[in-house]
Amino acid sequence: MRHLRPEIAELDGLFDPRSVAVVGASADPGKWGHWLARGALAGRHRRTVHLVNRGRGEVLGVRCAGGLAELPEAAELVAVATPPAHVPAVIGEALRAGSRYFVVITTGVGDPPTQEAETELADRVRAAGARLLGPNCMGLVDSGNSLSLSWGDFPVGSVALVSQSGNVGLEVGRMLARAGLGFSRFVSLGNQRGVDAADAIESLVHHPPTRLVAAYVEGFRDGRRLARVLASAREAGKPVLLLTVGRSDAASRVAASHTGALVSATDVVAAMCRESRALLMRSTGELVDTAQALLARVPPRTGRVVVVGDSGGQCALAADTLADEGLTVPTLEAATVAGLTQALPPQAHPSNPVDLAGAGEQNLGSYPGVARLLGSDPDGVTLLTGYFGDYATGTPGLLGDETAAAAGLAQVAVESGRPVVVHSMGRDTEPLRQLRQFGVPVYERIEQAVAAIARAAHWHSLTQRIPGSAAEPPAAVPLTSGDYEDVRALLAGRGVPFPEAEFVVSEAEAVDAARRLGYPLVLKAMGLAHKTEAGGVALGVEDEARLRTELERMRARTGAERYAVERLVRCADSHELIVGVGRDPAFGPVVLVGQGGTATELERDTAVALAPLDRTAALELIRSLRHAPLLEGWRGAPPADLDAAAELVVAVAQTFVAHPEVAELEVNPVLVHPGGVVALDAAALLAAPDRVEDRTHAVDGG
Amino acid sequence: MRHLRPEIAELDGLFDPRSVAVVGASADPGKWGHWLARGALAGRHRRTVHLVNRGRGEVLGVRCAGGLAELPEAAELVAVATPPAHVPAVIGEALRAGSRYFVVITTGVGDPPTQEAETELADRVRAAGARLLGPNCMGLVDSGNSLSLSWGDFPVGSVALVSQSGNVGLEVGRMLARAGLGFSRFVSLGNQRGVDAADAIESLVHHPPTRLVAAYVEGFRDGRRLARVLASAREAGKPVLLLTVGRSDAASRVAASHTGALVSATDVVAAMCRESRALLMRSTGELVDTAQALLARVPPRTGRVVVVGDSGGQCALAADTLADEGLTVPTLEAATVAGLTQALPPQAHPSNPVDLAGAGEQNLGSYPGVARLLGSDPDGVTLLTGYFGDYATGTPGLLGDETAAAAGLAQVAVESGRPVVVHSMGRDTEPLRQLRQFGVPVYERIEQAVAAIARAAHWHSLTQRIPGSAAEPPAAVPLTSGDYEDVRALLAGRGVPFPEAEFVVSEAEAVDAARRLGYPLVLKAMGLAHKTEAGGVALGVEDEARLRTELERMRARTGAERYAVERLVRCADSHELIVGVGRDPAFGPVVLVGQGGTATELERDTAVALAPLDRTAALELIRSLRHAPLLEGWRGAPPADLDAAAELVVAVAQTFVAHPEVAELEVNPVLVHPGGVVALDAAALLAAPDRVEDRTHAVDGG
Repeated sequence: MRHLRPEIAELDGLFDPRSVAVVGASADPGKWGHWLARGALAGRHRRTVHLVNRGRGEVLGVRCAGGLAELPEAAELVAVATPPAHVPAVIGEALRAGSRYFVVITTGVGDPPTQEAETELADRVRAAGARLLGPNCMGLVDSGNSLSLSWGDFPVGSVALVSQSGNVGLEVGRMLARAGLGFSRFVSLGNQRGVDAADAIESLVHHPPTRLVAAYVEGFRDGRRLARVLASAREAGKPVLLLTVGRSDAASRVAASHTGALVSATDVVAAMCRESRALLMRSTGELVDTAQALLARVPPRTGRVVVVGDSGGQCALAADTLADEGLTVPTLEAATVAGLTQALPPQAHPSNPVDLAGAGEQNLGSYPGVARLLGSDPDGVTLLTGYFGDYATGTPGLLGDETAAAAGLAQVAVESGRPVVVHSMGRDTEPLRQLRQFGVPVYERIEQAVAAIARAAHWHSLTQRIPGSAAEPPAAVPLTSGDYEDVRALLAGRGVPFPEAEFVVSEAEAVDAARRLGYPLVLKAMGLAHKTEAGGVALGVEDEARLRTELERMRARTGAERYAVERLVRCADSHELIVGVGRDPAFGPVVLVGQGGTATELERDTAVALAPLDRTAALELIRSLRHAPLLEGWRGAPPADLDAAAELVVAVAQTFVAHPEVAELEVNPVLVHPGGVVALDAAALLAAPDRVEDRTHAVDGG
Repeated sequence: MRHLRPEIAELDGLFDPRSVAVVGASADPGKWGHWLARGALAGRHRRTVHLVNRGRGEVLGVRCAGGLAELPEAAELVAVATPPAHVPAVIGEALRAGSRYFVVITTGVGDPPTQEAETELADRVRAAGARLLGPNCMGLVDSGNSLSLSWGDFPVGSVALVSQSGNVGLEVGRMLARAGLGFSRFVSLGNQRGVDAADAIESLVHHPPTRLVAAYVEGFRDGRRLARVLASAREAGKPVLLLTVGRSDAASRVAASHTGALVSATDVVAAMCRESRALLMRSTGELVDTAQALLARVPPRTGRVVVVGDSGGQCALAADTLADEGLTVPTLEAATVAGLTQALPPQAHPSNPVDLAGAGEQNLGSYPGVARLLGSDPDGVTLLTGYFGDYATGTPGLLGDETAAAAGLAQVAVESGRPVVVHSMGRDTEPLRQLRQFGVPVYERIEQAVAAIARAAHWHSLTQRIPGSAAEPPAAVPLTSGDYEDVRALLAGRGVPFPEAEFVVSEAEAVDAARRLGYPLVLKAMGLAHKTEAGGVALGVEDEARLRTELERMRARTGAERYAVERLVRCADSHELIVGVGRDPAFGPVVLVGQGGTATELERDTAVALAPLDRTAALELIRSLRHAPLLEGWRGAPPADLDAAAELVVAVAQTFVAHPEVAELEVNPVLVHPGGVVALDAAALLAAPDRVEDRTHAVDGG
């Protein structure tokens, strides 16, 4: 598939170049130039390796060239660890010679280093059809291709890590190694001037040694492209575990209004993960625990767990932890109980948890024996808790039996198809190493084991879901004001129901309109940014006298020229929702649904999705609210019409997407009741003109 | 203080007997009789040790006596590891000879072992004024007294562990050892026939080597006594970390009604912990992490954390984790920023997080240097995250500098009084050992470090709190029915406000009463267990015609003979609460306050405390509700009268305590509004007569 000189070099070549040059190679074992040279030379059986140093000299027994020009051929990949001032010249020379890939470790570019110099260099590399990783990165490692242009230990395995932080990568590496796992590939993104997170993850979708993708991303650029890449990894059967930061940022990215206050940057990333079926992680530890479960030889697929332990206390703690995570500890079937009763001594409890009550210590074969008796249901999980893996620590004579039991457990898992997960109070013992080697996940803390099962089960549950995106609507005639009257007309035209209303200027017109609509009424002043706060809304106007007084008072207070006279909607068993759409700088249109009413900000019972979305996704969004049971017929009340609410959400999102001139669109409150749905108010915030055009550009060319 | 033969032996003697006999001593290194003998003999420099075995013979070079009768003197403590059948005879013989303490490892008593035989034995021991630990326990260890009558490794330290599960004790021991901590004392409770959790913890209150008490308790007996003991440990300055189980039990212990459905056994234990200022733990890992923070040489006292790391990614992840736990990452003062700017190279970020951006690796002295520059505020915490402790793993030449920096960090903490906590991606390295040795807590995962800081800060915040218990009221004239009419009268007599009402039988009486009270009214049928569900409540009866119709309909539907005609209460800005009191089998009266209204069960926004309680505690209870901000003046609404609500809670709890014949008492809804509080309905469930007397007995004599 790779061409000798394609228009733009395919990224796969970055991970298996035919030749490598390390510029800035060094004999000092404390320098990057040394680590790169050592790593590159380790791949000499597979590719030509050149070392370059202005001072020439010898590094690791290899004589250095004084510059790239002295090399007999252009190196396909050039790794750069020179001072920032030299980077432009080195890369310029390499491009002229025909190099295709650059890995720039150097923290910056130029003398002094500037952002502009970095951008300029990236543009030059791109214009030449070559690819740039960095600058300011910790390089890359491809285990299968013997390519190591980084620092530190990279145990070989099936996890690919794409990281915007080198140290987070090292931390994950340490933890993977402790869990008996390792890397298929490591890509340190650095400043992402060329290759970005989406590029690097895309290269992993069809990379056979990679069974799981882990990514640490701090800043999102073209969020929609990343979402598509994550979804394609998922379609290729590879879990993506995404670690990000920003939960602590008080500031929201979707600007003002309720919607703005209720949507954080992390909510949007979480919505993206839900839609592209990636798992959003909160810490490196959680990531590695989850990877262990997903990469198990027989991975947990559900949260139905049978606990097995040698102590009632440890069994009970495990059951509590499972309950905390919302997993189930099902009752055993009669046949299973009978089998366990026969196999175990009388002090054991043949229920769930299976408390061996010392029978495990008496006979370590009890563990694989019980695992086998629990059957072959792949939709269950057998969770060992406590002692197993640590018996021989205190009683070395048990080592042989315990190691054999570990092998037995692994075998039962494979033969029965029923996953086995182990929590052990031991650490790094031979039986535990044995378990990990055979692909049985092992955890030091019960809460880690349980959380990993929960996340693996969640990931497996995601496969059944229907994608939530919808077709982008064509752009429509731009909105010229964000006022209720105009926004209402726009939304009504797309099928959003509003109460009957007339728009008036004079008191006489208002009284006339009221006669046609009938009392009680709602009176609203037009042309105000925050009409409720400004005293521009009167609810429940009961007669003409009141209407005249309210209008007079409102005119005096707000100075408004135009007013809506609107029928007051009253319906039994109704609930308030808020529906808003805003634009995230990285992910574009984002729709929010939340519980409405006075407690909205207190409850923060909201759900976010990328827009546009289809009806199924909108319904799922509403149903994901914590208060959804109230809408669905709580304690005998008739259920609200959620289908109608979902249609409204779809219409509001579509309207927003069709109107790039709108920065925010909010329908609040939306009344949903057993007979349907009605929007009681709506407003839009128009974007500054220079912002409107902006959104048609791709954010980053990568 | 210890008497030679007190009426009942003081428990302290159990942990430092003058002589020990191990009955059932064995030469088999896989048996309890061997482990006990080995442990006992290790204390021979401090006390006389006898080994007893029916077959005589030699164990570990010591000749065994054939029975206790052959010993030259009575052993003060007898450890028993014989078969169950022999236990009664062994203990009988020892009691006759004058032994005072028994540690029974044997899993049961009698041939065959029965509960009755255990109880009978415990009674005999108690009657003789002696003390019994077990049976079915894993013995005890007292590090300071060289007493080891257990199995496994017990590193020496300042944590006392009291455990109802031996294996949970071992698991905690493993984790403590990894954290560089150890045991001052270990007490395995087993079946608690004699010494129970409260006894064992009480013995630790004035035990100088114990700085922290950890307890694993599965079943609570005299919960109030335990609460008092925990509080006294707290008063002695010792944190108590309590680990328990039962969160997964679907069944509630406080029986029927809303209150019952809303209070779980774990809620009651949590309430006990809050009142006695113990920390309720969810896992062994959490317990050991928290112990590490509380036992630090300079323990964290607040959640104001400055993060220091060598990588932007790790710093950002730490800040997010702190935000997740609700801790604060305060802005640094200008002087501190200036100091950091001067001390660090330009690539570092002198803000919070302090991102050294590689300056840490360049100069490991940066870490203690930054810690020193962060000042001497003991109400802050310095949290290192990521690389520190692991630099020398990849670059062995850094070991000296890194170990020196570790010592420097510990020194800064002591000198400045500002705590230092370390999260390191390394494990078991020399610098990390150094840190732990100097009393600096070290964690493998950032979330563990952050959660431990949060819990230590929480514990320190508890010292300021006012105890919430109130005097027990004297018993009152018993209630004979749980009907609204009677319960209302009882509560009104104790100051609980109800709407004006009259109780009637006939339609004519009802109409008369209505004339006096004024419409709209509420009509309620008396004598029904669940009157709302039975159609026995009509709200908002607007006129006489309606009253007649409703009364007729209600009479037909419910067959009730008596009715309440009650004024309908309407007040603006009111909120519904539920207030209930029930009786927990171990902890006695328990009061619940919760958000009322239709969503009560969905929200489960409830808080529980032991009853009776004082006004301060009641106010704190109400304020601990998730929805409390709604009551306190949300978004400009006038605040509800929480003082009045607290008084109502106190009165309802007092009423319950004064009425042992009441099993449950519920006031629901309670309307709290800016002008006060009013109870809109109330009911009681009377206890079965045989239950009433029960509660006057102490649950367990210990």
